[in-house]
Amino acid sequence: MGTEKNTYLYNDIAKHIEQQILEGVLLTGDKLPSVRVLKQEYGVSISTVLQAYYRLEAKSLVESRPRSGYYVSYCAQRIPACPIKSNPKKKAVQQGVTEMIIDFYQNLSNKEIVNLSLGVPAADLLPVAKLSKTLHETVSKLPAGGTYYDNIQGSENLRRQIAKRTMLWGGALGEQDVVITAGCTSALSLSLMAVTKPGDTIVVESPVFYGILQLANTLGLKVMELPTDPSTGIDLEALEKVLKRQRIHCVLLVCNFSNPMGSVMPETHKKELVRLIQAYEIPLIEDDICGEIYYGKKRPTPCLFYDDTGLILWVSSFSKTVAGGYRIGWVAPGRYFDEVMKLKLYLSSSTATIMQETVANFLENGRYDHHLRRLRETLHANSIKYIRSIGRYFPEGTRVSKPKGSFLLWVELDRAIDTEELYDLALAQNITFTPGNIFTLQDQYKHCMRLSYGMLWTERIDKSLELLGTLVKQLLTKDPALRIALPAKIL
Amino acid sequence: MGTEKNTYLYNDIAKHIEQQILEGVLLTGDKLPSVRVLKQEYGVSISTVLQAYYRLEAKSLVESRPRSGYYVSYCAQRIPACPIKSNPKKKAVQQGVTEMIIDFYQNLSNKEIVNLSLGVPAADLLPVAKLSKTLHETVSKLPAGGTYYDNIQGSENLRRQIAKRTMLWGGALGEQDVVITAGCTSALSLSLMAVTKPGDTIVVESPVFYGILQLANTLGLKVMELPTDPSTGIDLEALEKVLKRQRIHCVLLVCNFSNPMGSVMPETHKKELVRLIQAYEIPLIEDDICGEIYYGKKRPTPCLFYDDTGLILWVSSFSKTVAGGYRIGWVAPGRYFDEVMKLKLYLSSSTATIMQETVANFLENGRYDHHLRRLRETLHANSIKYIRSIGRYFPEGTRVSKPKGSFLLWVELDRAIDTEELYDLALAQNITFTPGNIFTLQDQYKHCMRLSYGMLWTERIDKSLELLGTLVKQLLTKDPALRIALPAKIL
Repeated sequence: MGTEKNTYLYNDIAKHIEQQILEGVLLTGDKLPSVRVLKQEYGVSISTVLQAYYRLEAKSLVESRPRSGYYVSYCAQRIPACPIKSNPKKKAVQQGVTEMIIDFYQNLSNKEIVNLSLGVPAADLLPVAKLSKTLHETVSKLPAGGTYYDNIQGSENLRRQIAKRTMLWGGALGEQDVVITAGCTSALSLSLMAVTKPGDTIVVESPVFYGILQLANTLGLKVMELPTDPSTGIDLEALEKVLKRQRIHCVLLVCNFSNPMGSVMPETHKKELVRLIQAYEIPLIEDDICGEIYYGKKRPTPCLFYDDTGLILWVSSFSKTVAGGYRIGWVAPGRYFDEVMKLKLYLSSSTATIMQETVANFLENGRYDHHLRRLRETLHANSIKYIRSIGRYFPEGTRVSKPKGSFLLWVELDRAIDTEELYDLALAQNITFTPGNIFTLQDQYKHCMRLSYGMLWTERIDKSLELLGTLVKQLLTKDPALRIALPAKIL
Repeated sequence: MGTEKNTYLYNDIAKHIEQQILEGVLLTGDKLPSVRVLKQEYGVSISTVLQAYYRLEAKSLVESRPRSGYYVSYCAQRIPACPIKSNPKKKAVQQGVTEMIIDFYQNLSNKEIVNLSLGVPAADLLPVAKLSKTLHETVSKLPAGGTYYDNIQGSENLRRQIAKRTMLWGGALGEQDVVITAGCTSALSLSLMAVTKPGDTIVVESPVFYGILQLANTLGLKVMELPTDPSTGIDLEALEKVLKRQRIHCVLLVCNFSNPMGSVMPETHKKELVRLIQAYEIPLIEDDICGEIYYGKKRPTPCLFYDDTGLILWVSSFSKTVAGGYRIGWVAPGRYFDEVMKLKLYLSSSTATIMQETVANFLENGRYDHHLRRLRETLHANSIKYIRSIGRYFPEGTRVSKPKGSFLLWVELDRAIDTEELYDLALAQNITFTPGNIFTLQDQYKHCMRLSYGMLWTERIDKSLELLGTLVKQLLTKDPALRIALPAKIL
């Protein structure tokens, strides 16, 4: 009890100071109150104050100077501005996207590369040892060592765990409402196939995760990209106009921590979105894959919370929180349950038994929650470090998203920059990132890029961001004589 | 060396006697030569002769009578005849099939049921302990405990093992030719999607595995069923006529141990089939899922062996030989490689890392081959026991296939029987099987059923076949007074 209260207290103090820094009340170089002053102010012990400062130091927000005290090291003024709201053309497009993505996957295993295009937290942020332990325990207890075909809907145990977790945001799903799939991509493809047929039109945010564009293209769907705010997500007025004007067969959104922008729809927007899909009777596929990786006090609510008509197919997975290689995702398909079940049975049959039961046990024994707390803290700290480094190394005018969860940054550069050209230059320096233009079918984001901060922060990453920033500056400098020299190659 | 030679000798003796029994040279009740006579005849030791008799006894072909010797217990005369060649209408059909299949999967876990509809060898025929051991060894050695996304094509190690095994039938695939999938169903669906589009027509054998009918329906394909011989497979003249007459977009066949008939295309047929698809430039999806479960001296050759044009997508999995629940299949897509890779990436992403590496190691350390030898022997013995019991318990006129591999029997009953009605009666007695009519879209096989012998032979299974036979006899007897009493319910 004492420890818990203590934890609560130093977290409170740390958050209070963090807020003042982020809001620019405290500026870089400002001296912070001494430990003794804070002790009196908050009526806590010295060790509690020190713990608060240690936390802030871990996030690189403050630094201690020997024999002097703590100082603000983070500079609100130097943070790049947020990207502006997107403005795609209001027309549905049906076409393929660049073939670059298979390359990404092939580069993944190359250890020499600083992989800022990673779509998943790196292994050193994952609970590898505890997962393996759970796996061994699980297999030894499973009938026939888990060799049997699981039922098509998926492990009852795992579905129960997933349903139980919905209570954390006020959801009331039962195990009977959930269908397990081999990862989130499968959950998305089964859901899309369940509610559309070739030639149909779907609405998405813009920029939008390239996997969704490829999936839509594979299924013969037209894609309508709508204006999207980097902080509040899709423009609902634009959505309503489209729904009034033409037949839309499905809305597909990442309402919490979108990929690549990182936007979160405010609760009022979610309610309004649900009202719209109900009014027009249009299914909403809600991809909530990073909903559990929030930095704030509580998990943002899925739109599912506001719907009671079964129009929402709520999709997620453990790929970003537990292990991508386990291939465990799910969908709660609402009124499309039968259709999704049939598609799963016919196109892919059951999901790997051992992987499902291992994740179920990992959730049940509490290791999952313990791991999530650490993951969120690390990623939150990473986001601050990345944004600061970009502010320091990239040219003025660079805009960066300020995500409140997940592990992705959306960076807007000068419009003169082509990030596909930059990609090749960076790759030659052993750095990869994701060029912006693959997040649209409309050739809008050539000057943008997605950076992943899903790995342990190191000197090497800071150097990579410096190198990347320098490459951008070089591209902007037409006169070779004025070119800035590159820092040393990353190895 | 000595042991190997010995094994070879007693196998030889056993096979020689077995053949004489199957051909009716030796009849039920015939006394077999004494151990001493055979010792002299073959010039081997007494223990070698005894081992030969033990093998025959294990297959229920002979029985020993105390102080008297060995007698033939199997009766060639009582074996039911083979089913006749099928004769579907020559028209393409596009429609759904019965919804019964989800029920099958739901009954799987009910231990009270004698599951003769099982589409996979039961757990007690699988190498459960050795697999779990391999799994533990694998996970402990994998980087990051196998949490990482594998590359889209699949584990290099596993692809190498699969490619290496093709040498056993004269194949020459390399690891670069193989794409790993989450089970055989995924391999089939990706292959079909790669070579067809909605509205296209595919050719299949008849009866045909219901999963293929459902898959085709899901993808909006028309299905043309062709006449099929229970022993030699699809009628190639009928196929050529169709190819001449109309546009066919894909031929999909199980050339080795088809499901449900168990037919194997002779080598000359395979060559002719390959000539046909080459002449008409039509892709052949060759589902070779049970090719490794042969009872003869060597694995039947896949059609792939005869093709050098890349028109064959060779599909298989470890679901029937290692563990269905592991969900590991593959396709060697030939010239459709890029298309299959893209579909896999976009629709489902990578396959579970740990499951792939475990199977790879299981193959590499030789445990797979060891297990396969035992599996084939057990299933071969089972097929004989089942056919004998059906001959004993089912009404005269019943026809049964004589498969040379896999674990499925196709049974043709009197045309007055409706096996869907029989299914309900059998289920009330805790027995399930697969009704014949779901293996066609043309309502041809109402009087047929598929029985699985993929489980350890027990008294209980013999009793189930007796009960099933009695139910059939009851259905054939219109007068209730003449009805035969049912044996005790199976529990």
